[in-house]
Amino acid sequence: MSSNNEPRKAIDLSHHVNKMSRSRGASPLKHIFQYLAEPGMISLAGGLPHPSLFPYQQLDLKVYTPDAKITPGEAVNSSMALSLPQYANGNQLNTLSKALQYYSGRGSPTLTALFYDFTARIMRPGYANWQVLLNSGSTDGWSKVVNLFCEPGDYIIVEEHTFPSAQALWAPMGCKGVAVKMDKDGMIPEDLERIMENWATSHPGIKRPHLLYTVPVGQNPTGSTLTWERKKAIYEICVTYDIIICEDDPYYFLQLPQYVAPSERSGEAPQGVAIIEELLVTWGQDGYLRWLLGIRENYGIRRDWIVDIVRDVFDVLPAGDDYDNDFIAVIKGHGKDTNPVPLFSFSYPKGGMFLYIKVHLGQNPDFKALKDAGEEEPDEKWTREFWQELIQEKILVTPHWFYAPVVGPGEEKKKEPDVAFFRLAFSYESREDMYIGVQRLAKAFGKSWQNLTDYNVV
Amino acid sequence: MSSNNEPRKAIDLSHHVNKMSRSRGASPLKHIFQYLAEPGMISLAGGLPHPSLFPYQQLDLKVYTPDAKITPGEAVNSSMALSLPQYANGNQLNTLSKALQYYSGRGSPTLTALFYDFTARIMRPGYANWQVLLNSGSTDGWSKVVNLFCEPGDYIIVEEHTFPSAQALWAPMGCKGVAVKMDKDGMIPEDLERIMENWATSHPGIKRPHLLYTVPVGQNPTGSTLTWERKKAIYEICVTYDIIICEDDPYYFLQLPQYVAPSERSGEAPQGVAIIEELLVTWGQDGYLRWLLGIRENYGIRRDWIVDIVRDVFDVLPAGDDYDNDFIAVIKGHGKDTNPVPLFSFSYPKGGMFLYIKVHLGQNPDFKALKDAGEEEPDEKWTREFWQELIQEKILVTPHWFYAPVVGPGEEKKKEPDVAFFRLAFSYESREDMYIGVQRLAKAFGKSWQNLTDYNVV
Repeated sequence: MSSNNEPRKAIDLSHHVNKMSRSRGASPLKHIFQYLAEPGMISLAGGLPHPSLFPYQQLDLKVYTPDAKITPGEAVNSSMALSLPQYANGNQLNTLSKALQYYSGRGSPTLTALFYDFTARIMRPGYANWQVLLNSGSTDGWSKVVNLFCEPGDYIIVEEHTFPSAQALWAPMGCKGVAVKMDKDGMIPEDLERIMENWATSHPGIKRPHLLYTVPVGQNPTGSTLTWERKKAIYEICVTYDIIICEDDPYYFLQLPQYVAPSERSGEAPQGVAIIEELLVTWGQDGYLRWLLGIRENYGIRRDWIVDIVRDVFDVLPAGDDYDNDFIAVIKGHGKDTNPVPLFSFSYPKGGMFLYIKVHLGQNPDFKALKDAGEEEPDEKWTREFWQELIQEKILVTPHWFYAPVVGPGEEKKKEPDVAFFRLAFSYESREDMYIGVQRLAKAFGKSWQNLTDYNVV
Repeated sequence: MSSNNEPRKAIDLSHHVNKMSRSRGASPLKHIFQYLAEPGMISLAGGLPHPSLFPYQQLDLKVYTPDAKITPGEAVNSSMALSLPQYANGNQLNTLSKALQYYSGRGSPTLTALFYDFTARIMRPGYANWQVLLNSGSTDGWSKVVNLFCEPGDYIIVEEHTFPSAQALWAPMGCKGVAVKMDKDGMIPEDLERIMENWATSHPGIKRPHLLYTVPVGQNPTGSTLTWERKKAIYEICVTYDIIICEDDPYYFLQLPQYVAPSERSGEAPQGVAIIEELLVTWGQDGYLRWLLGIRENYGIRRDWIVDIVRDVFDVLPAGDDYDNDFIAVIKGHGKDTNPVPLFSFSYPKGGMFLYIKVHLGQNPDFKALKDAGEEEPDEKWTREFWQELIQEKILVTPHWFYAPVVGPGEEKKKEPDVAFFRLAFSYESREDMYIGVQRLAKAFGKSWQNLTDYNVV
């Protein structure tokens, strides 16, 4: 009898829970907890170590202020102090004697409450009885999802290029990936729908996939971010086919503003970035949010670095309709040729830490030689050889086969022929090293395509 | 061609590795690591967050000195300072920018090296190619052992009273415990041998157990410590039957000196405790070892508290040959009766944090009534009811059914009839609360056995 004003309750998905998780029983220790809080109770029940034997008396931290200005390469001068005493002192919530003691597997209730509030305000879940469960990071969280829902041999829906550590958790169970085609806006809903529609004929007698893994923002490795329309379309397909969506979303707060070419940059942050901040400050929890916005700004600067550098070291042109990326890169000085040879295509990353370039092998002499020689997997052979050439040039990037879905024999791998991909992380190196690195990349491209070596490499 | 002077290599136990672990593949990231260290290499390969975005600039710790005197209930006055800067500074090994960055799953190489050295010196493994693998605590370590060796449905050898959290890791896999009889010196080798000898007839067609879980020192919950002779005997049986022994040994450094009655206590630590310390100091790593010895001394004092209190609140007599414990406790003032009624028997804990008392129900009126009424499991019913009476008296201890092995239907449970057990932890409560707690225990015993209520309870 809920009115229309109350948010609906979560859909019951418990039929997806696997046999092992259904077999888990409660710990007998739960019988203790209900009695421990009774006034006057003396407990010789727990096996807790005595906190006087934790050898830490005081922890002091010097931390950035939430609004600290962090400019890559410059020291941060805005600090504040945090302190954690051994025992409670006034109304201090956190103490070392509590923090170092055994906890429930759910972790700190204080931290859980903080993230619950944060999620309610910022993520605004669309149903009433949602919960927050702390974990030790995304891969740990995903391992719990896999161990909760997957049976050996299950098929898991993944993106065409997917995060290898996420696969490492289900592949040893004999599970297999079902790869969904993607482009610069992430997973393509029509391909997901096609797979599910045809499942009974393509996989007769085999259980339909019931778990979808996606990195929706700044996808690893492609850097793509799902549009709102695609999210809605994927959600509807998953409702139809009873699929649980697991978003591994470490880069949610690294949704970056549109790239603006240096010549058109005003030097000021885009006006929209300020509006959001003011909104968040009004909502409260402003310190943490300011901090997240600061991180975003920082990776935004780094994204601009890598794109600026690629535009500087190569000639970059609009890609045209033949490409699913926005731009093509050609050898420097050849941008005005009548038919410039495309080395790779790319789009400006709208989130995350990665630029994924798609190398077009059609006109590469080595690749053509491999094909002419009847090589069975010329793309893979070329990629491995070119990757070794990059290493010879002292530039380390990751090739697409790191991110290939673990699919069963005879299943679609999805990668189109005659292309290769490389992931360039812009999260870590200095601007100077990034520049040298992209120059080395350009040198290797030049050698491989036209045997050119006239790049001015430092 | 190894000479007799070289320690032998480890036995190959890889045939025990389960299907899932054999299916694990190497991460493609390993391809990166080999190139990262090359001089002059520029890496756009990793997806590492930039350390300037970890908001911690300095961590300062006030810690006990390794030789700090820690007396229960008294403040510790001996401190030293530790400091961790954001970035390397001189030859500082540890920095926040390293500590907060992604690591290999093996954890900190510095910490691993420290524990390797410690293990070599103190534990002295009997073979050459042993390794140290960090984990997040014993239960995490045991979960990795279970996930490495166990298949669904396997039988795992456990002690008759076993640690429930350890079972929680294999029970949902449909594994079953095989309970081995134990006494005050821990698991009884003859019972283990009997089980293995008879396996083919008792479990026709079922795979023999190949993993043994034990808490060898200060066992949880019984407080028993395996003797050297028993360890050797168990090892030999496990060699014969190809069983992997997993020692969960959190209390190794809580091996406590023999309990000495207060009237015979000299006030000085036993001379043997000093010899070991001097030896360890000579070996080096003296700070950590001194610290461990200090912890041991502290829990030794606490063990003496609980035993002193039990001897004070009850009359305690030598148990005689009818008991597998050393002492019996009878109602205060009845120690000199001709046939005093034994309430419970116990032995002085030689390690760990627990006193496990064995309650003898033969002469308990309530228990006799349950038996006369034809109750199917009178021990269990009595224990649950008496535990509720203890809670009414505001004294919380844990009953033996918390520690019952999860065995298959029809398997031996091992617990002898007409007894109950309760675990008293001496690790946490103050001496004053411990005293009140044991008095409350005595009051409940008095009421249950003879309807006596003349205990002077605070």
